[in-house]
Amino acid sequence: MQALDALRDGAPAHPEPAGQRGGRLTRINPQSGEQLSVEIVKIGHAPTLAVAMCSPELRNLLDPAPQIDRLAGCPAAGLIPTLMAMLFVNVQNMARWVSETGPEAIISGMTEALERNFRRWPEFDRTPRLAAHSPVGVIELMPTTDGEAYTFKYVNGHPGNPAHGLQTVTAFGVMADVYTGYPTFISEMTLLTALRTAATSALAARWLAPRDVDTMAMIGAGSQAEFQALGMRAQLGISKLRVFDVDPAATAKFVRNLRGLGFGIEVAASAADAVRDTRIITTCTADKANAAVLQFADVTPGAYLNAIGGDCPGKTELDPRIVEEADVFVEHTEQTRIEGEIQRQAADFPVTELWRVIRGEAPAGSGRTVVFDSVGFAIEDFTALAYVREAVTGTRYAEHIDLIAGPDDPKDLFGMLGAPVPA
Amino acid sequence: MQALDALRDGAPAHPEPAGQRGGRLTRINPQSGEQLSVEIVKIGHAPTLAVAMCSPELRNLLDPAPQIDRLAGCPAAGLIPTLMAMLFVNVQNMARWVSETGPEAIISGMTEALERNFRRWPEFDRTPRLAAHSPVGVIELMPTTDGEAYTFKYVNGHPGNPAHGLQTVTAFGVMADVYTGYPTFISEMTLLTALRTAATSALAARWLAPRDVDTMAMIGAGSQAEFQALGMRAQLGISKLRVFDVDPAATAKFVRNLRGLGFGIEVAASAADAVRDTRIITTCTADKANAAVLQFADVTPGAYLNAIGGDCPGKTELDPRIVEEADVFVEHTEQTRIEGEIQRQAADFPVTELWRVIRGEAPAGSGRTVVFDSVGFAIEDFTALAYVREAVTGTRYAEHIDLIAGPDDPKDLFGMLGAPVPA
Repeated sequence: MQALDALRDGAPAHPEPAGQRGGRLTRINPQSGEQLSVEIVKIGHAPTLAVAMCSPELRNLLDPAPQIDRLAGCPAAGLIPTLMAMLFVNVQNMARWVSETGPEAIISGMTEALERNFRRWPEFDRTPRLAAHSPVGVIELMPTTDGEAYTFKYVNGHPGNPAHGLQTVTAFGVMADVYTGYPTFISEMTLLTALRTAATSALAARWLAPRDVDTMAMIGAGSQAEFQALGMRAQLGISKLRVFDVDPAATAKFVRNLRGLGFGIEVAASAADAVRDTRIITTCTADKANAAVLQFADVTPGAYLNAIGGDCPGKTELDPRIVEEADVFVEHTEQTRIEGEIQRQAADFPVTELWRVIRGEAPAGSGRTVVFDSVGFAIEDFTALAYVREAVTGTRYAEHIDLIAGPDDPKDLFGMLGAPVPA
Repeated sequence: MQALDALRDGAPAHPEPAGQRGGRLTRINPQSGEQLSVEIVKIGHAPTLAVAMCSPELRNLLDPAPQIDRLAGCPAAGLIPTLMAMLFVNVQNMARWVSETGPEAIISGMTEALERNFRRWPEFDRTPRLAAHSPVGVIELMPTTDGEAYTFKYVNGHPGNPAHGLQTVTAFGVMADVYTGYPTFISEMTLLTALRTAATSALAARWLAPRDVDTMAMIGAGSQAEFQALGMRAQLGISKLRVFDVDPAATAKFVRNLRGLGFGIEVAASAADAVRDTRIITTCTADKANAAVLQFADVTPGAYLNAIGGDCPGKTELDPRIVEEADVFVEHTEQTRIEGEIQRQAADFPVTELWRVIRGEAPAGSGRTVVFDSVGFAIEDFTALAYVREAVTGTRYAEHIDLIAGPDDPKDLFGMLGAPVPA
């Protein structure tokens, strides 16, 4: 409040060139087109920010509302005391945001954000994920940073879970400010991961898939399937789906969920039946095995395979010959050699990283069958977290969460206890 | 609710020998003396648990309340649908819990829990922490698991933060179930880390420090200082403190906070003055430098040094000669050689891991000065999270948090969106 009073009384401005790094300056929202430089200064005991240029998002964070107009004439400078508050998107709010905004619109927007970050791929830290394996599954932490924001995702993989009514994969994610180390955002990521995976498929398809195709075959109708269908429609204009799953209940769920969303859907009798004469194929199956849901002979030469189900050691989907005779594109080679379809190929099997195609540094294919061997990478989670954070800040989908202690005096943690009872 | 109905109607019991591992069985609360075996089964679409033996904590989780009596006659078996709910302790509730329970009582309880886990040290995963460094600080993820529970702590270290009204270190932590991969608990850990650090100091003092000493010197009166004082009093009966800090405001805060908690406090004119003729010394300073807050000549031969401030590369507190001529004890050697006082010693400088002393596998010292070169380790955070989770479950200090998606059908994530708007 002191800071807002200072603002009203004409506090000193701290203008800085937009985008400048160094000292205590940072651009919040590296995903956003807007430039925003902030410097942390101390006003009384409250952490406050001196804002050189501000965005609508930032104004939404201002509280109480009457002060908002005071900053409306950006790029005016001002002092904002509430920006250290951590935002939270819970499961219910994520579901509402996606449902009310439209999953296809979100996947489309996220595809654009992904393309921006894939273009600056070398700026990101590409630490391998940190995995804790047990006999029944794995728990992973997937961090990355672009030097300004830091994110990590917690994600598990427990193939036996569905037999017990639980999901194979659950996730949540956190974003933090590299300059202060303070977490700024926490979000459910089970739904969000499905959106970012579909957006990544859409981005790869934009650069690698044939055009003027209206039908996609889908092998696997599980948790990811509807999101994949929407992503590929948004990107390629797919209007017809030919779907096959070994579990008829999953297929029925898929048809039910997409009913009313404008697809023509044909249920195939087999995987081979689904892909016959189709040039766009998505495989998203869940078996933890070196499966071969498609044989080499099934696949139309020159087809595009969006292969997302082979994503951990011992879990692949494709007849290895499909991969051997295709141009293969990956996210992060080092990780995909362990987790993707190419885990069954030699360690020097040639692949191309997608970001290099997007930056114009590598060709999109040679006319052979193309496989996008997708396993998911931390930069995609970073992008998804940044995207949803920007989208929901200042809306009813975001709440504040009291996770990070903020003592008035940073050296007086004990003072937060008030007058504790003696022993 | 189906599960509770089934319970009322006499659902089949799933009795299992307490403590048995394997299949879907796990003991929840490995920290607790109580035995508890659970098996995840499917009742309808809801994830449910068949409980063979149950504890008061588990009964507290039952909702709605009327069913609680039904399980009061443990070891009766029953089905519990709500145990997958994730609990959350926010900053305000942590502060209230500590204040209302008493920090000294909590540190004492946590010391006992730490000793139990130090005794089974080899059962824990000891993965190095995963650090993301920037020019102004570090963000770390510190995971560990004992094969039943998994925890990680997010923690930053930004020495420049206090100059901007922010804390050097903030933290939060998460606990998950290894058998399902589902997170079960999230907690603030800025306060909690101060408690666990004090409890670790108390545990080391129990095994390494001289008895019948009533005075402790404290160099450094920052965030950790009061917690350290309470922990050493609880363990050793320390009643008098001689404190020195280069910042008089920090010293004043320390005196103010401990006023009314029964210590005799003497403010020393210098570090050397504080430690003169004292045999118990705690150093907890914050300078990011190879400082020497104590010189070799200052320290009474045979004294016990609880050295907690030298805890990252380039940050030490002691004249290296103190360390060279002492018996040095550490938590996890590999990490302490990078982060502790011994970073300034040769790579083969002899140290003893504390857990080996506690298990009777190594002596507690040879009569020389003793240094506990403490840097903090993930097993301590694991213990602290398990301790607070057990303590607050079923109390007003714990809330449910909607962080992990739970679709009725684990394959129907899209169904959580209801009827989403079309593109």
